[in-house]
Amino acid sequence: MPKLSEEHKQQRIQQILMAAMEVFKRKGYEKATLKDIVEEAGMSRGWIYLYFKDKIEIFEALILDLDQQIHDFVSTKKSHHQSAAKMLRAFIENYKETLLAVDESIYPAIYEFWISGWRDPRAKEFFMNRYEKLVQLFSNLIHEGIEQGEFRPSIPVEDIVKIIMSSVDGILVHSLAFGVKTIDANQQVDHLLQRVEELLNLS
Amino acid sequence: MPKLSEEHKQQRIQQILMAAMEVFKRKGYEKATLKDIVEEAGMSRGWIYLYFKDKIEIFEALILDLDQQIHDFVSTKKSHHQSAAKMLRAFIENYKETLLAVDESIYPAIYEFWISGWRDPRAKEFFMNRYEKLVQLFSNLIHEGIEQGEFRPSIPVEDIVKIIMSSVDGILVHSLAFGVKTIDANQQVDHLLQRVEELLNLS
Repeated sequence: MPKLSEEHKQQRIQQILMAAMEVFKRKGYEKATLKDIVEEAGMSRGWIYLYFKDKIEIFEALILDLDQQIHDFVSTKKSHHQSAAKMLRAFIENYKETLLAVDESIYPAIYEFWISGWRDPRAKEFFMNRYEKLVQLFSNLIHEGIEQGEFRPSIPVEDIVKIIMSSVDGILVHSLAFGVKTIDANQQVDHLLQRVEELLNLS
Repeated sequence: MPKLSEEHKQQRIQQILMAAMEVFKRKGYEKATLKDIVEEAGMSRGWIYLYFKDKIEIFEALILDLDQQIHDFVSTKKSHHQSAAKMLRAFIENYKETLLAVDESIYPAIYEFWISGWRDPRAKEFFMNRYEKLVQLFSNLIHEGIEQGEFRPSIPVEDIVKIIMSSVDGILVHSLAFGVKTIDANQQVDHLLQRVEELLNLS
């Protein structure tokens, strides 16, 4: 194989991840194969094996990429001096958009992968790591809001973050299982936001 | 096969469901086989086929059996003239006990089955049906509380029930994925209860 520049390599990886995203959206996690990803990417199998050992590695890279988008979202808003309250509101309200097309999103595959990994220590570690990083990111955001005098939370900050995270997953899982209309998902998001603002004692 | 009395038949079915429960707790849904259930029940395969076509049918019967326990829980409390507020509190607080040993419970198998069924119209219908029945049960309970002057909810009753249901599943799914301690599951249950009592304007 020819030696690729770092930039070229990153381009290839993004190309693989984009193809994988399409495949996982279409087929879910279990039914997607490396062959599907190879075909979607229009690359030879060899190119893909250069960067990823198997389907699991591709999927994990995809999730880390999505998490990076959350981190970038927070960083961008911060660099625009947006208040923590506004950022948190934007983050939670953003789920309404996700819910609009949740059936065709990557979420069914994420939950499939997640749940099939409960009995697998490696997958468990991956998700634990991810959970702790997200708790940290949002805890930091809230602490900054406290320092700026925006919030005076009545309970520990980490508890609030954990409530947000399990509530969001509850709404997403129910939307997928029963449909966004059946569960009144938008209203549930609004109530979650209201609940969070109460817990933070938004001033 | 000899003809069995209705009572004897129900006994056999319960015996199969109890064996299936043990197998699904131990192996989850996907990895459990009809053979495992046959062995655990100590019956011949023929006996089981008399009542159930496949693993899916056994699992669905098991879930309906668990739902019956929720219905019975509400009926028993009603017959003891327990207030709707106390019943609702008992129902939500009961999850703390479930969470103590959630890894060894039937929940991992339920979520596995649930999520593998998202793309299967038959499974989807089964779960939709189940969701609507549970929403109905708890909506009725809250309406009785309103009539008794216990609650003056600030939002539609069904919305409150749907929030309870997605919150509970969010806490359960996160407990399984990250551990009850990591997510402070008990505290999350307490906060849910507080939230629900606020939405109901408990008097």
